[in-house]
Amino acid sequence: MTDLPISRYPVPDILDLPEDLRDTVLAIQEKTGFVPNVFLALAHRPDEMRAFFNYHNALMEKDGGLSKADREMIVVATSAENNCQYCVVAHGAILRIRARNPLFADQVAVNYLKADIDDRQRAILDFAIKMVHESHAVDEADFESLKEHGLDDEDIWDIASITALFALSNRMANFLAMRPNDEFFGMAR
Amino acid sequence: MTDLPISRYPVPDILDLPEDLRDTVLAIQEKTGFVPNVFLALAHRPDEMRAFFNYHNALMEKDGGLSKADREMIVVATSAENNCQYCVVAHGAILRIRARNPLFADQVAVNYLKADIDDRQRAILDFAIKMVHESHAVDEADFESLKEHGLDDEDIWDIASITALFALSNRMANFLAMRPNDEFFGMAR
Amino acid sequence: MTDLPISRYPVPDILDLPEDLRDTVLAIQEKTGFVPNVFLALAHRPDEMRAFFNYHNALMEKDGGLSKADREMIVVATSAENNCQYCVVAHGAILRIRARNPLFADQVAVNYLKADIDDRQRAILDFAIKMVHESHAVDEADFESLKEHGLDDEDIWDIASITALFALSNRMANFLAMRPNDEFFGMAR
Amino acid sequence: MTDLPISRYPVPDILDLPEDLRDTVLAIQEKTGFVPNVFLALAHRPDEMRAFFNYHNALMEKDGGLSKADREMIVVATSAENNCQYCVVAHGAILRIRARNPLFADQVAVNYLKADIDDRQRAILDFAIKMVHESHAVDEADFESLKEHGLDDEDIWDIASITALFALSNRMANFLAMRPNDEFFGMAR
Amino acid sequence: MTDLPISRYPVPDILDLPEDLRDTVLAIQEKTGFVPNVFLALAHRPDEMRAFFNYHNALMEKDGGLSKADREMIVVATSAENNCQYCVVAHGAILRIRARNPLFADQVAVNYLKADIDDRQRAILDFAIKMVHESHAVDEADFESLKEHGLDDEDIWDIASITALFALSNRMANFLAMRPNDEFFGMAR
Amino acid sequence: MTDLPISRYPVPDILDLPEDLRDTVLAIQEKTGFVPNVFLALAHRPDEMRAFFNYHNALMEKDGGLSKADREMIVVATSAENNCQYCVVAHGAILRIRARNPLFADQVAVNYLKADIDDRQRAILDFAIKMVHESHAVDEADFESLKEHGLDDEDIWDIASITALFALSNRMANFLAMRPNDEFFGMAR
Repeated sequence: MTDLPISRYPVPDILDLPEDLRDTVLAIQEKTGFVPNVFLALAHRPDEMRAFFNYHNALMEKDGGLSKADREMIVVATSAENNCQYCVVAHGAILRIRARNPLFADQVAVNYLKADIDDRQRAILDFAIKMVHESHAVDEADFESLKEHGLDDEDIWDIASITALFALSNRMANFLAMRPNDEFFGMAR
Repeated sequence: MTDLPISRYPVPDILDLPEDLRDTVLAIQEKTGFVPNVFLALAHRPDEMRAFFNYHNALMEKDGGLSKADREMIVVATSAENNCQYCVVAHGAILRIRARNPLFADQVAVNYLKADIDDRQRAILDFAIKMVHESHAVDEADFESLKEHGLDDEDIWDIASITALFALSNRMANFLAMRPNDEFFGMAR
Repeated sequence: MTDLPISRYPVPDILDLPEDLRDTVLAIQEKTGFVPNVFLALAHRPDEMRAFFNYHNALMEKDGGLSKADREMIVVATSAENNCQYCVVAHGAILRIRARNPLFADQVAVNYLKADIDDRQRAILDFAIKMVHESHAVDEADFESLKEHGLDDEDIWDIASITALFALSNRMANFLAMRPNDEFFGMAR
Repeated sequence: MTDLPISRYPVPDILDLPEDLRDTVLAIQEKTGFVPNVFLALAHRPDEMRAFFNYHNALMEKDGGLSKADREMIVVATSAENNCQYCVVAHGAILRIRARNPLFADQVAVNYLKADIDDRQRAILDFAIKMVHESHAVDEADFESLKEHGLDDEDIWDIASITALFALSNRMANFLAMRPNDEFFGMAR
Repeated sequence: MTDLPISRYPVPDILDLPEDLRDTVLAIQEKTGFVPNVFLALAHRPDEMRAFFNYHNALMEKDGGLSKADREMIVVATSAENNCQYCVVAHGAILRIRARNPLFADQVAVNYLKADIDDRQRAILDFAIKMVHESHAVDEADFESLKEHGLDDEDIWDIASITALFALSNRMANFLAMRPNDEFFGMAR
Repeated sequence: MTDLPISRYPVPDILDLPEDLRDTVLAIQEKTGFVPNVFLALAHRPDEMRAFFNYHNALMEKDGGLSKADREMIVVATSAENNCQYCVVAHGAILRIRARNPLFADQVAVNYLKADIDDRQRAILDFAIKMVHESHAVDEADFESLKEHGLDDEDIWDIASITALFALSNRMANFLAMRPNDEFFGMAR
């Protein structure tokens, strides 16, 4: 299956990338054991790739009221709404690892309303899904609902911004027909 | 995780089921190694359960132009449209087995348009999804399109009827908050 | 008009049906004065037909908190959502008979929110319509709302299961372009 | 059932209407044998009522490529899309009379795609339904399709304008919870 | 740009219009300095044109709880939902004049939820948008909500009727590809 | 009106921004005569702001088959689909400038299908709108259609990537209730 294209567009050799991106990709390869295809597919446009990962790293790795598992949970739920195969599969694997739970990612991807989540996670995902479909209708009641579950303004920005970033990412992955690495499907099952 | 409820309704002891259903369930347990929760959840109403499985067996096990993997593929794709966690997870496992492919079920569940399917399978799923959302608009052009891919009238009835049966099944599983057995998530990965 | 096809598929002679189905159909013909086309159209596949009517009879004829008119009301309202001509027309006739009301079926078919229904019936239909479109979002609040109107858990299963069965039935009738018998249109007006 | 309100708003005595409207209503009463409730409900606002019926008469009674039955067929199909009980029931009755067909109105109301219509009528209704939901997307291809079925520019304006008028009428009837006269339900069955 | 067609249909010379319409149009031209294209485009059918403007004048110029700016605000918000270029642009200009506010019309057209409106205006527009998309679901709760903001039954009829009239108008303008006069775009900025 | 909040979140003093962002903002202020509110609202999170503008600049200022006006046209059309007041108003102003056309932005915002666009622009916007709503369904036919209008693979990536970036931007502007500067509304009219 490894011969199938991972993107509609040409994929550069990692060694031909600008130095900062090359170092990033090689570090990930060393840590993970393989290069996630998103790095190869986006490398066709280094400037956009760099901006995307800078935005990504500013949100997904930070401290705050949202755990890393919470952040990946938002990615999986909202990417499923956008039918993004790459993001659901790749971030589903990361979510299984972060949440130390082999079932959680599939539950969230199919129907988060029936996943093993608590009320706080339910409030987070309700808001994230509203951001996917009708961000123009976000209002004070949304903030109040989230604050009742102990989330503060910065946490709420995080939920919104992660959802917004993956609104971008899902569209690019869909556009490129980006193929998840085979490794992701079975990881941490 | 095994303590979580598998249905909103009481689940009878298998040994208290009418004899025909009890035999069916025990046979499956022997073959599979566990009792899929759908048998337990539906057992609250033996008559409906019996009718459901009779319909199911008439469609899913038969010969014809559709392979068993094709049939499970239809179930996974249409159940994902209906956000049915039980059916996507349980039939996803069966699809991995039938198709001898660990990636296929997740691909189909998230976005069948980008799954590793051929043109014939694409035509099958396009029609199945039409049956999910706008069966009232099915017309001769749908039949022609399917016949161009070598499917005959009986195959087309099979696609329609499988989709219709899981329109029922998805709604009951969603209504009952039916929980997939943990075993299904990791099976045949 | 009686020459127009009643199904896209061949319709067998009743006398060629398996004995149990033949007896069923002949009994209905004797009681009703004609054979409803659904029996002819589904007879192309006796096993699916038998399962369908077994499921149907387990739900539509039983005792419980829902009257027979309530059950037909659910069928008409949900079949209208699915634009199923056969089910709206045929079950509309039965609803007029069961409810002893010549206006009720048309009201329910066009807009149940403005039909001559009481609060309990409104709650039943609100839930049934939710089962049609978003069964994945059914939750405890739905159960509470129905119980406030005197419905118990078994009644609620009935509503859900009738809706689920006609999700199947509507799709098959639409797929087959099943034609309602002329008799149904004017019955009990 | 005749005691149920026919409008959310007060209904004036016909004899208190401005002379032109009073004469109109009395003439209809004489011809039909009863006063259709739309005349009573709209009479709360004589100026709007007069404008509405002037628009209506300019479109529904005129000569041209569309028969009177075609015009009523458009009303029934588009009013069903808008879930307008008054218009589907009242114009359904008129359609049965105009088309001299007791089945046609119910077929069109539930699913015009499976009604006993010819290709020309199908093209008319496809366009009318497009006018209901996405008039902003009407383009030359719509005109060409209609002209292939022998309709000219004035006929096409008629289809569009009837649909537009009933977009108004459906909303007012829904807003007023306008009740169809009992007589309409059984007329011309 | 003035050479571009203002309607798909022939536009008559104003002087050839029936006397009452000709006088109306000339009076508007004298007051406004130009003839809004809606008068030219609709003049192809004088009877429909006369009925439309009689309905329009009965609603838009009257006294009552709604100011003239409120009425235009309803037109702009609902016409934006229907993607009607003519009505958003022309009535946007009138709204800027009526509300003495150069920003308000664009805010309302893009997202009234974030426009500079007070709670009463928000309630008006929430109801108007409900009338656009689901008038069949209007119920007592809508009336109560509006009355809490000081609107009475006649005001509520006005909101409903304006929305209904522009449901007609938007469809005709879209159908005709009616072009807004260049003057409207920059007026009262 | 200038006292109204421009964001739900605190807005930092420009002089407190990291040096690179401060220089960027001051340069824009010098060029434009005012600071667009997006720079102030996003400055609450400098890292996300920097990544966003780096992505933006990589796409909106580059050479290629799309003119700068084409790029702004994509922003306005897709932002209107997302009901993003800030982006429609601010980029509408830029589009008027880039296209040297005072009417174009409002036309595109309300209904691009009836805007003064040529076939190539129509193909660009059809694809951009598909990217907004169903990027998961993008396929080879979309590429072929765009190439027929002289666009190459890099141009198509630009359309997709601009749409994706504003999927992010629209959500953040909506979330923040970001207020367009008054200056944008009347600019280049």
